[in-house]
Amino acid sequence: MKDVVEKMRPLFYPRSVAIVGASDSPTKFGFWRLKCLLDFDYKGAVYPVNPRLAGKEVLGLKCYGSVLDIPDEVDLAYMDVDARTALNVLRECGKKGVKAAVIFAGGFSEVGDEGKKMEDELRAIARETGMVIVGPNCIGVTNLYAGLCTFALDLKRLGLRPPRPGKISLIAQSGTLAQNFLLLSTVRGFYSSKIVSTGNEAVTTLTEVLEYLIEDPDTRVIAMYVEAVRNGKKFIELCKSTTKPLVALKAGRSEAGKSAARSHTAAIAGSADVWNAVCRQAGIIQANSFEELYELSMALASPLRPKGNRVAIVSVMGGAAVIASDACEEQGLRVPRLTEESVKRLREILPPVASVTNPVDITGSIIRDVNMFREALEVVCQDPCIDMVIAMPPAVRVPLLMSISRAVVDASRRYGKPIVMAWALPFDVNVQEFKEVTRILSEGEVPYCYMPEKAAKMLSALLTQAMLEKRKAKGS
Amino acid sequence: MKDVVEKMRPLFYPRSVAIVGASDSPTKFGFWRLKCLLDFDYKGAVYPVNPRLAGKEVLGLKCYGSVLDIPDEVDLAYMDVDARTALNVLRECGKKGVKAAVIFAGGFSEVGDEGKKMEDELRAIARETGMVIVGPNCIGVTNLYAGLCTFALDLKRLGLRPPRPGKISLIAQSGTLAQNFLLLSTVRGFYSSKIVSTGNEAVTTLTEVLEYLIEDPDTRVIAMYVEAVRNGKKFIELCKSTTKPLVALKAGRSEAGKSAARSHTAAIAGSADVWNAVCRQAGIIQANSFEELYELSMALASPLRPKGNRVAIVSVMGGAAVIASDACEEQGLRVPRLTEESVKRLREILPPVASVTNPVDITGSIIRDVNMFREALEVVCQDPCIDMVIAMPPAVRVPLLMSISRAVVDASRRYGKPIVMAWALPFDVNVQEFKEVTRILSEGEVPYCYMPEKAAKMLSALLTQAMLEKRKAKGS
Repeated sequence: MKDVVEKMRPLFYPRSVAIVGASDSPTKFGFWRLKCLLDFDYKGAVYPVNPRLAGKEVLGLKCYGSVLDIPDEVDLAYMDVDARTALNVLRECGKKGVKAAVIFAGGFSEVGDEGKKMEDELRAIARETGMVIVGPNCIGVTNLYAGLCTFALDLKRLGLRPPRPGKISLIAQSGTLAQNFLLLSTVRGFYSSKIVSTGNEAVTTLTEVLEYLIEDPDTRVIAMYVEAVRNGKKFIELCKSTTKPLVALKAGRSEAGKSAARSHTAAIAGSADVWNAVCRQAGIIQANSFEELYELSMALASPLRPKGNRVAIVSVMGGAAVIASDACEEQGLRVPRLTEESVKRLREILPPVASVTNPVDITGSIIRDVNMFREALEVVCQDPCIDMVIAMPPAVRVPLLMSISRAVVDASRRYGKPIVMAWALPFDVNVQEFKEVTRILSEGEVPYCYMPEKAAKMLSALLTQAMLEKRKAKGS
Repeated sequence: MKDVVEKMRPLFYPRSVAIVGASDSPTKFGFWRLKCLLDFDYKGAVYPVNPRLAGKEVLGLKCYGSVLDIPDEVDLAYMDVDARTALNVLRECGKKGVKAAVIFAGGFSEVGDEGKKMEDELRAIARETGMVIVGPNCIGVTNLYAGLCTFALDLKRLGLRPPRPGKISLIAQSGTLAQNFLLLSTVRGFYSSKIVSTGNEAVTTLTEVLEYLIEDPDTRVIAMYVEAVRNGKKFIELCKSTTKPLVALKAGRSEAGKSAARSHTAAIAGSADVWNAVCRQAGIIQANSFEELYELSMALASPLRPKGNRVAIVSVMGGAAVIASDACEEQGLRVPRLTEESVKRLREILPPVASVTNPVDITGSIIRDVNMFREALEVVCQDPCIDMVIAMPPAVRVPLLMSISRAVVDASRRYGKPIVMAWALPFDVNVQEFKEVTRILSEGEVPYCYMPEKAAKMLSALLTQAMLEKRKAKGS
């Protein structure tokens, strides 16, 4: 086992956790931090710590006055206290033999010289004690394989249940985006594995977490929200060493963004050109927005890879098929003619108003017989001129959509060609009914999105990844 | 009153409607067409027509065997029958003196020579009778000011109520996108006015509908989904003649897309370069995706216009503020320093961990006192260096989000500077709770979106529109 895996174990798989600053007041993060941990059903021991509440119960757990009072070994300590207090408690943690700590508080290097000094102290403590320290100025670590979540979420209010563990991990130099990624993957059903908000990275950097995730068997895709990479050479080496899909959203590209990144996490963001070169060299796929970061991660979590760039579009919506065609071409994909044989078979299956060229447009006639979609999908998947498929079923007739989702999962399994489903309607329009659809697709490992432009980007990312895997496997 | 308004009246404000092909079977569009009209609470007379059901009741209404049997004047006829039958019934409509008709069926010029002939017949009937004909190969017309909707939606299943009328109108050369635009504007709460799916445009073209919407007092923004403009010169003249915001999504930009457009609505899409030139000349703002078409329409529906390109960002999320800064700069907007005075006031209001430069990052401290957001907003709105604002409240604490929404509406009214709100979390994550938030914003005419990139595009569109309005007012 690699050193990094052993070193990070107390952070991702702690046997016991102390929550310093735990509170019984819902206006405090220390309340939500504890509640969230309990909601996610963490199985290890949990010790609230708060001098004001020593001896009392907080959310049903006995509260201690100090980490030193806890009558048990503590693997991991969460610090829900201000910057100065965090440093003091960290020293106590050192004495106690705590192996890892997460510092949530801001007020360190991102706010000026005084904070910089405190961050130096923090680093000194890490060196002296060997503790793994995440933060400061972060929201910590979620590991759905250990029931661990420090994001202080009120799941019940959001109408959510704790998500099942999935295969997508995220390293984020932003707490909110870490949290929102977790929520998005929970609602859309392609679940997360580990999500780490690294904050100011006083000790543990994005690169170190990356090294861990590359080794992690429960991580199939590594997504990153990056403001600045602090140890670039090692970062590039690591990226080149893995065939796991890497997908990144870079912020701080512009002058205004760089300046904002400096006040956010004290990050010195490099130029966009440099970053683009890093991505090319290291084999990182770039996302252009937060939602795209999630969508491309979902696509790349699919076990299938295309053999070429030829896309078939099967739609019931002519306009959306036109948009999909444009988007494919703009992404460097082709929407080629189908074989004579395929066209002939489609003519037999589909009504006269349908278009049997590529894109195949079944039109609204689909409401008469949903099997037309299944059969058309079979034809294009069997076509030797086709490497992958965009399937666009009707959005507003959910029973049809479900039946088509099952057909898409079947076809994708049978023919091993990547299929992305898009239904041309933002998910918020009918989120309750879409839930059943997304469950079918996500269990069948079929990526999906709502608009055809996104589907084209997802397929394009899959193709890029297929090429990167070949290149990296050759070690070049 | 302009001729076009009088001519189009039977289409948008009919006193009576015949639904030819009305059905009592939910597997038929003729059922949903009728049901949808009743659900939207159309106040005029409705006459189902279907020879098979003559004398019976369909959805509680007496059904007639032919339009000729209806004992009343008929302003508008909907044709839920196949292409050939539609032509026959259209001739009967001519005899009956029907003033307008919508042909839903496909199978006309988009499928080949036989269809082209039928479309010629259709045009001949229009010439002979003077009927206003929409379609074929379309889903018709929605006018929320008349309770009119032909989109055959099952609103109840979608958990929706018929939307209130709003100020955004859409002309779409795609039925699905017309329908989905209505749904999106219903769910997001910045409601629609009139939505027209023009299909093959055998008779009534996009340009003619545009002429009507320019005159329509209930249309503040005109959105368009365009595959091809059939009478370009008139189109450009009309666009130049109006100061109403025009926003368009062009499909059929690529070779694959052009070919798809041909099979979709028989449209001959021109090159992307030509279209870009048309937009510049005519003063049309371009959207890059369907969702963006809606989002920019929402922004442009705001009555406020910025005086310059200087944006203040007020956020509780550092990462999202960095993304917003990048996005502003990439959209040609500036994120300038605030005045010394503003910085001083922000320092007094906000905690030490906050960033008081632009972007202003209140950080998670917001949960201690939501008034900090209101006060920070006041400061940046009063700053003479600031023309508009992106407000980014916390997404997962909805009570805070609501209180901040009210503050944003107040500030926007008081200072007359455009504010766009973005909460960095896709709407589908918490659609129920967001509903109350979007109601507050939409009633306050404050545009919103979920990600900061979108907010920057929305502000940029507002600035472009402000400049277009000046240019057009000068008549240049």
